[in-house]
Amino acid sequence: MTGDFRRPALVLDEKRARRNIHRMAEKARQSGVRFRPHFKTHQSAEVGEFFREEGVSAITVSSVDMALYFADHGWRDITIAFSFNLLQMEEIQDLAAKINLDLLVESEESVDYLNRHLKFQTGVWIKVDVGYHRTGIPAERPEEVAGLASGIEASGNMTFRGLLTHSGHSYHAGSRRELEEIHRDTVLKLNRIRDFLRAGGIGGCEISVGDTPTCSIMSEFKGVDEIRPGNFVFYDITQMEIGSCTQGDIAVAVACPVVAKHREREEIVIYGGAVHLSKDSLTLGDGRVIFGLVASGEERGWGPPVPDTFVSSLTQEHGIVRTGRDFFDRVAVGDILFVLPVHSCLTVDLLREFHSFT
Amino acid sequence: MTGDFRRPALVLDEKRARRNIHRMAEKARQSGVRFRPHFKTHQSAEVGEFFREEGVSAITVSSVDMALYFADHGWRDITIAFSFNLLQMEEIQDLAAKINLDLLVESEESVDYLNRHLKFQTGVWIKVDVGYHRTGIPAERPEEVAGLASGIEASGNMTFRGLLTHSGHSYHAGSRRELEEIHRDTVLKLNRIRDFLRAGGIGGCEISVGDTPTCSIMSEFKGVDEIRPGNFVFYDITQMEIGSCTQGDIAVAVACPVVAKHREREEIVIYGGAVHLSKDSLTLGDGRVIFGLVASGEERGWGPPVPDTFVSSLTQEHGIVRTGRDFFDRVAVGDILFVLPVHSCLTVDLLREFHSFT
Repeated sequence: MTGDFRRPALVLDEKRARRNIHRMAEKARQSGVRFRPHFKTHQSAEVGEFFREEGVSAITVSSVDMALYFADHGWRDITIAFSFNLLQMEEIQDLAAKINLDLLVESEESVDYLNRHLKFQTGVWIKVDVGYHRTGIPAERPEEVAGLASGIEASGNMTFRGLLTHSGHSYHAGSRRELEEIHRDTVLKLNRIRDFLRAGGIGGCEISVGDTPTCSIMSEFKGVDEIRPGNFVFYDITQMEIGSCTQGDIAVAVACPVVAKHREREEIVIYGGAVHLSKDSLTLGDGRVIFGLVASGEERGWGPPVPDTFVSSLTQEHGIVRTGRDFFDRVAVGDILFVLPVHSCLTVDLLREFHSFT
Repeated sequence: MTGDFRRPALVLDEKRARRNIHRMAEKARQSGVRFRPHFKTHQSAEVGEFFREEGVSAITVSSVDMALYFADHGWRDITIAFSFNLLQMEEIQDLAAKINLDLLVESEESVDYLNRHLKFQTGVWIKVDVGYHRTGIPAERPEEVAGLASGIEASGNMTFRGLLTHSGHSYHAGSRRELEEIHRDTVLKLNRIRDFLRAGGIGGCEISVGDTPTCSIMSEFKGVDEIRPGNFVFYDITQMEIGSCTQGDIAVAVACPVVAKHREREEIVIYGGAVHLSKDSLTLGDGRVIFGLVASGEERGWGPPVPDTFVSSLTQEHGIVRTGRDFFDRVAVGDILFVLPVHSCLTVDLLREFHSFT
């Protein structure tokens, strides 16, 4: 299928994406938890339909604009898993009027603002920080969580939904055991807070977790009501390195034309740069920083990553592929190479238009 | 002007951009060199008009698609300063039919391909590598350059235009003196090759250089026929760190809503992440890696960067601003902060829509 491309293009292996979705949906069903996938990875109504076919009706997004987009495409149960942005109150009112909308808060200011302004009944989750230290109330401060939960319960227009976290520190885990440990610790911390709330008379508290690494390696989700992974739909080489997936699960690649070769450095120059792949990088065990792995095209899709071959640097439109003599000699100017991205969420956000095959 | 924004938005200080353009155009005029600015930084027909008002009629772009876009907006003299992509031959024919098009080559395969396929007269530059080691024929191999130049001259459909380089290693220069040294070395190497070509009977060879750092600090361009800087139109904190500009020259910032605050870490969470700013980072002298500097809004635009305050990490939609107690206390959830980008080319490519003020 290399003949199909003339410029950097986002190629989607639909079969792999559907298989990734099916596996996660099935695992959620078996665990008896709600599967509320994060749609920020694909941001596509078309890919959303793959989920619908697996029985998914509740979704997660990371911005008000994404919520508006998916609401326009028939999704009626959406959580905006991003700290409430009071500057977009107008759009939030519109959404709350027509769908089951859940918001995320982590401060009294936000709860007060919503209490004063919300015109329609809206669900509210409290963001808890279980160790990632990006956002949320530290899990060590249950009384602060209880204060917010009481404020939400006391209001007439908000329904307290529960505790939501993103254990993003799982991306730095060095082993499967460490991932399992992060998941157990997350669930334990959130359940302790739930118990604390219950003791204080606050019930109806659900627990929502959702990073792709732990959701991928755990076989069941005891103590949890909802999972919200997103990246797993496509995976990428970061997830492969963490151990969340194998190379055969990666469902997107960027087709890049070869425009030059430099024999003395065994480097291939591709048309495919930071504006196509993003500057997100992966530091390998040996300290090398890479921007993608490289595969050859096959009749349908791409093959396994070429050994000892990787994108070593990116500028705006250029990528440099470092390789060995054997692969170097097999590639010609005008060929197409497939780059497996470091971070599929950012690559997909940049390219948007999927070239699908099954 | 903080009241104008509800989500991450690209704000353009038009007066600064016009001043940056005027200065560079004036410097080129005084040096008697052609000013062929690189339009990959702004990619905007509207910003292109600022250049037209400074007498610019020849431009540089980094993709065939950008050339098509600017040709549609009335530009009639365009160099695609990116190694010829033979897979886009069809679009190149269309361009060559209607404008003065210049291409860039660095291999015999490309020259042969063009010789066999070009239907309209097209200018061709040879890319020379003077030390950046991304693309181009190493400056130490003048005979290889001469081989390509002869091939171009011998063809009926190509006009040999000259030697083109991008001294991208200037981005790693530690001082003004080092930048001047890189520029002198670049000009010396290219002039040596020009002499070599002349001795072999190949004339009409121009010299085109064009990175923003050296073009910003040099006061004249002896030994050069054309300059192609791009980033200087907006600059950014990378250029400020190199010494190419001051903070008052930076003409774009990203307006970002504040969505949370974490007192114990003196961190502010903004809606503004990798999909708005890009993951390009800057390593400061003290080893800190940052993703932007931060300024407060003013009645028109933004103020100087807040001391000891920077974007310390980015995920897809979130940015974390690390600061001190004083600024932390002055900022509230719902405020707008202005982020000065690490790399304006990538930030502009992500956001595209300019919110201009003068």
